[in-house]
Amino acid sequence: MILKLISATDEWCITEEGFHPERNRVLESITSLGNGYMGLRGNFEERYSGDSLQGTYIAGVYYPDRTVVGWWKVGYPEYFAKVLNAVNFIGIDVKLAGKELNLHTWAPQYFQRILDMRNGELVRTFQVRDEAGRLFSIQAKRFVSKAQREIACISYSISLDEDPMGQGAEVTFRPYLDGDVRNEDANYGEDFWLRCEESSTESHQLVTMETKKSHFRVAAASSFRVFLGDRELAELERSLTVHPRFAAAEVETVLQAGETLTVEKTVAVTTNRDHRDAEVSRRALEMLQERASFRYSDLFQDHSEAWHQTWRDSDIVIEGDSAAQQGIRFNIFHLHQTYTGEDPRLNIGPKGFTGEKYGGSTYWDTEAYCLPFYLSTSDPQIPRNLLLYRYHHLEKAKENAEKLGLKGALYPMVTMTGEECHNEWEITFEEIHRNGAIAYAIFNYVRYTGDEQYLEDYGLEVLVEICRFWASRVTFQPRKGVYMILGVTGPNEYENNVNNNWYTNRIASWCLEYTLEVLDHLSAKNRDKYHDLIDRFQVTKGELEQWADIIDKMYYPVVEELGVFEQQDGFMDKELLPVEAIPQAELPLNQNWSWDRILRSCFIKQADVLQGLFFLGHLYDLETKKRNFDFYEPMTVHESSLSPCVYSIIAAEIGYREKAYELYLRTARLDLENYNNDTDDGLHITSMAGTWMAIVYGFAGLRLENGRLTLRPFLPDQWKSFSFALLFRGHRLKVTVTADEVAISQIGGSRCELAIHGQNYAVDADSEVRAAI
Amino acid sequence: MILKLISATDEWCITEEGFHPERNRVLESITSLGNGYMGLRGNFEERYSGDSLQGTYIAGVYYPDRTVVGWWKVGYPEYFAKVLNAVNFIGIDVKLAGKELNLHTWAPQYFQRILDMRNGELVRTFQVRDEAGRLFSIQAKRFVSKAQREIACISYSISLDEDPMGQGAEVTFRPYLDGDVRNEDANYGEDFWLRCEESSTESHQLVTMETKKSHFRVAAASSFRVFLGDRELAELERSLTVHPRFAAAEVETVLQAGETLTVEKTVAVTTNRDHRDAEVSRRALEMLQERASFRYSDLFQDHSEAWHQTWRDSDIVIEGDSAAQQGIRFNIFHLHQTYTGEDPRLNIGPKGFTGEKYGGSTYWDTEAYCLPFYLSTSDPQIPRNLLLYRYHHLEKAKENAEKLGLKGALYPMVTMTGEECHNEWEITFEEIHRNGAIAYAIFNYVRYTGDEQYLEDYGLEVLVEICRFWASRVTFQPRKGVYMILGVTGPNEYENNVNNNWYTNRIASWCLEYTLEVLDHLSAKNRDKYHDLIDRFQVTKGELEQWADIIDKMYYPVVEELGVFEQQDGFMDKELLPVEAIPQAELPLNQNWSWDRILRSCFIKQADVLQGLFFLGHLYDLETKKRNFDFYEPMTVHESSLSPCVYSIIAAEIGYREKAYELYLRTARLDLENYNNDTDDGLHITSMAGTWMAIVYGFAGLRLENGRLTLRPFLPDQWKSFSFALLFRGHRLKVTVTADEVAISQIGGSRCELAIHGQNYAVDADSEVRAAI
Repeated sequence: MILKLISATDEWCITEEGFHPERNRVLESITSLGNGYMGLRGNFEERYSGDSLQGTYIAGVYYPDRTVVGWWKVGYPEYFAKVLNAVNFIGIDVKLAGKELNLHTWAPQYFQRILDMRNGELVRTFQVRDEAGRLFSIQAKRFVSKAQREIACISYSISLDEDPMGQGAEVTFRPYLDGDVRNEDANYGEDFWLRCEESSTESHQLVTMETKKSHFRVAAASSFRVFLGDRELAELERSLTVHPRFAAAEVETVLQAGETLTVEKTVAVTTNRDHRDAEVSRRALEMLQERASFRYSDLFQDHSEAWHQTWRDSDIVIEGDSAAQQGIRFNIFHLHQTYTGEDPRLNIGPKGFTGEKYGGSTYWDTEAYCLPFYLSTSDPQIPRNLLLYRYHHLEKAKENAEKLGLKGALYPMVTMTGEECHNEWEITFEEIHRNGAIAYAIFNYVRYTGDEQYLEDYGLEVLVEICRFWASRVTFQPRKGVYMILGVTGPNEYENNVNNNWYTNRIASWCLEYTLEVLDHLSAKNRDKYHDLIDRFQVTKGELEQWADIIDKMYYPVVEELGVFEQQDGFMDKELLPVEAIPQAELPLNQNWSWDRILRSCFIKQADVLQGLFFLGHLYDLETKKRNFDFYEPMTVHESSLSPCVYSIIAAEIGYREKAYELYLRTARLDLENYNNDTDDGLHITSMAGTWMAIVYGFAGLRLENGRLTLRPFLPDQWKSFSFALLFRGHRLKVTVTADEVAISQIGGSRCELAIHGQNYAVDADSEVRAAI
Repeated sequence: MILKLISATDEWCITEEGFHPERNRVLESITSLGNGYMGLRGNFEERYSGDSLQGTYIAGVYYPDRTVVGWWKVGYPEYFAKVLNAVNFIGIDVKLAGKELNLHTWAPQYFQRILDMRNGELVRTFQVRDEAGRLFSIQAKRFVSKAQREIACISYSISLDEDPMGQGAEVTFRPYLDGDVRNEDANYGEDFWLRCEESSTESHQLVTMETKKSHFRVAAASSFRVFLGDRELAELERSLTVHPRFAAAEVETVLQAGETLTVEKTVAVTTNRDHRDAEVSRRALEMLQERASFRYSDLFQDHSEAWHQTWRDSDIVIEGDSAAQQGIRFNIFHLHQTYTGEDPRLNIGPKGFTGEKYGGSTYWDTEAYCLPFYLSTSDPQIPRNLLLYRYHHLEKAKENAEKLGLKGALYPMVTMTGEECHNEWEITFEEIHRNGAIAYAIFNYVRYTGDEQYLEDYGLEVLVEICRFWASRVTFQPRKGVYMILGVTGPNEYENNVNNNWYTNRIASWCLEYTLEVLDHLSAKNRDKYHDLIDRFQVTKGELEQWADIIDKMYYPVVEELGVFEQQDGFMDKELLPVEAIPQAELPLNQNWSWDRILRSCFIKQADVLQGLFFLGHLYDLETKKRNFDFYEPMTVHESSLSPCVYSIIAAEIGYREKAYELYLRTARLDLENYNNDTDDGLHITSMAGTWMAIVYGFAGLRLENGRLTLRPFLPDQWKSFSFALLFRGHRLKVTVTADEVAISQIGGSRCELAIHGQNYAVDADSEVRAAI
């Protein structure tokens, strides 16, 4: 393990000691910084000619890249929206005694990079010695401001530690903005950007560009100050460079032994998502100007305070297991870096701001895995914005269903703006269970927050259109008198084009059940409003009857003799083997087996039947969960990072504590340990929320029952205790679980009723309850 | 219908009257010429700036184009072999009175193109008038020699018909070779060729090029002579041009009213498939030199005689239906142009030499649809070479199976050299029934020719490896005690990844049955040889027992209550509708429905269960065929050009004569009428063999029963008679069917026993038998 835990304080840090060029791309992913508005990988400020994926990303700024398919099918989307690699604004060319600093060619004597998660700062410290024997210490620090989203700051210091010749060393800094960037994953090697303007003056550099086709305009402005020790070298002459998409200014001075030279670079990034085209550059410059008198440390102060507040509401503390502690903080840190919920036009890309892969678009991961995290750790406006994102895409989802010859709304598998971006028929057209997650998120949000008004204002409309989709997608089978759903891909994507995937049939029927419940509830509560909405959405009596009929006659495959739900029709015809039977060298299957072999095997990529038992856990008893877990778990390869958390939660629920912990470990440090050997492409952001769930829903057993928080906590044997913050309907709670006790305290607030292992309790304002477990 | 039948003689011709630029690409496909070694689309000799697909192709000269996929899967091939657009050798730049002739800008006064199928010649005649009122008649004729495969000839004549000014007209010819060509379907717009050499002298032009990666070297050499009337203008000065990939020579003269100027261009094309690299250019020049004294008419003589011989052995004559007559000749003509069977390294591309689509590679079409045509109309060496093609690819097929984690041999779906080229998992990995067709072709060849030696020398080894594949691909289902084949795509590609496709299970089992039969037969016939082969192929007793066990316990889905085979597990869960229920505007489905909708519908792309009942017709009674036909035919959309022929043959067999004729019509003139609206991309070569089968196997009811030809003929009501030539084990037969009689005559030969409607007959040498029908 290269990412050391040097001391207990390192539970707040990710520390790499020594430079490992072969792992540089992995470390770049791990040390990515972001603030929901923009972010960047942990690339070096100075030039680096070794293996690196340079990446700066701005939320919502995408490009409709021409799609690639082997064989075109009717209905495939024309484009795949991609998160764009944008202007590189961290760059600082450095020369030491006339020679360009580049860690690919200068072997560092000492090297350390630290991601400080408590403060959201990346600090890199290293030493290099030049041919004349001079020893330089370099420290590069940076943050992307959580206090002012358009701002990022860099502090880059060079000290001359040893100077055998006693002549000092010439040091050159050339901070720059470079817009000549490409996406590594551009389908046809296309350049996605057009030049707008650039300038370089004594006071600032500016590069403004616009994307082709999607016409996003992005301005990056930067300024910098140079200090010798604490004294500003305002008089240093700046030699300016500007050419298309590039702006820089160079300063040079001589550094004597014992001295430290620091350049502090401040960057402001604005886009036409927030400003009129003509204003974009000006606003970036103004923002810089407003901060002209601040130093790095001033801006850092506001930034780190914002992080402290976030940690207060969402930290998880694990005692007795530093690796687990570090792992969960890493996950929470990146989740908050990726999405802050301020902008309902945004969502959570599977790689956040840490890479290009998966196009940075939205998947059902958001509703299925991320929403619970934001529900419990953020202002309710934030999960609400996640829901509104889908509400705003309803028209596009209706168009999408129409394209497939169906009614109602089918939400896309992958999207940036509501349009489908995926292009594999078995996913794009058939992995329709995603629609269920959209409906489930509404249920989940309302259940947690109690915000029934959301249903009237937005949620019901989405639910109705989802029901219409299901009603047109089912096939009535007259010989058996049942409704079936043919030709689908369930959550377990290692089965394609199957009939009657249990999860899909169940979640489809549940969507209808929930919608009818919501309508009944509304009708009872406010008859006028009910009629108002029914009229607005043109819901007919016939439709309601049809939905009830589908609920009544939905077909569910089951294995009678085992008392388990059958993943799909024909699953039991497979050769049923445990994962243990697969030689280690053949794992992961998706990198070793041809697709047909995977498909006809019994092996399960990610929770499928168990996904249903997790979502709809309130409808199934423990014995049912246990039987299905016992049957499916041994066949599950967990080749989606989203899988183990669900299994872990159910294992916890049915009392398989060791199993729950073992499964938890598979995700907790997934990226820190690079288990899937793909962290170089970026982090698995959405699975990080699953890890959070594995603790809070799994070990602590959090559930909502009749509008009440309930906990069924236990402590994994490997830990001394764990505690987490929880926001619930205005209550700011802290839950601490030890081996034999759970303590729930409230900061401020009002009386909060809850249940622990089935017993009712109440926590009053600023007080605490304890219960034996 | 633009392709007129002007008179009865037109049953041998395809004639276009008037120039229709919007249909030019279609006519280019239709008027393609080829001789199995090379071929070209019906492009114009002179420049044409209108819509055109320029195409010259040389058999076996391919390029491994980088493949394109949406999402990569383990096992996908890295490349897609493509037939290559090669040097354009027909080109002749023409200037009339200083102005370049180009039918896109000169509106022809009269235009006719005729594909003369009896002689294999393309003749184009047109008139143009220039601004000075001069009227020119142009006649361009060409052929690709059937007598000497490397040779093609062009005769291009210009007459000055009217000359109001009486000054004559300057005419310039510039015959050229142009190697600056691209494939329209290159995946990344890549240029596939490298220059080798070019030259232009008084006596010849030469362009030699080599493909990148695959290193095929191709030389095209040309020479030309110019005649005024019959007098050679040997003295005309030639102005020579040569630049990379291009060689030309220009002559100029003045033509007076009433005079005709003709350029005769001879081309020789050689490749390093036949000669050493260093010899390729020289051989082309030598071939030209050998023909220096011949005129177009001399070379044409040998060529047309070769065609007359081919027609003698393979013509079908239909009386009373000129359109049908023209249609079937068109099909036979193109089949013979595409494949002559001289070179076992070659096979039959679905577009032959008429276009680039489908990469020009080999599909199971060859074994399933084309083999019977060549069996009955060609020297047995020719179908044998088709079989040897697969024999030579056996090692590659074994590698292919191994890639999928399976034993034995899996032949590729699409190939040029034995390596798989297709890249859709549901086809590449799952459409494994193709292996059955390879085995079936061996059975079919041996049954027809009686060449049992082929089995010992080549066939058995292929059969054994195919059996090993099936034995490793089946899944034993212990709960039901049966073998299943999970996760396949059957011939009906409108179902993907299904379990237990009846056809696949049946053909797999049949492969095992046939192989065991062959082994039993061999063991009885020649015990030593048997042991010899068993040892050579390392066939174990355990293997033979396993094969027998699979035959015994293979599972076949059936619909008991209807007495039909079920296309696959779960087919009966679909909504069963007839094609009539689909609105016309939604057909063809593959251009209107999204793929999921097609997949979950009952609609059938091409014969599937019925393909099995056709192949294995000798194992099923008429009632079974009838029940299955009645069930599946109404659901079949025939969106493969390979489908209607099989249905037509079965319809004929079960006495549905009107239906048989209706289905026959769907393919007979497919390209002439451009039914599928894609003839511009090239012709449907392999389906042409299906049309031939629909007459010979359908209307004439040809079968092989116990090594004996049997016929069950009937005459479609729309026809007066039909007759066809048939080669069978050295017997050169002619079968003529009228309303109430069938006549079978033999040219030369020896006594041939056969059966007509179940009655035995014998035809002696040079005699005839007749039977009432």
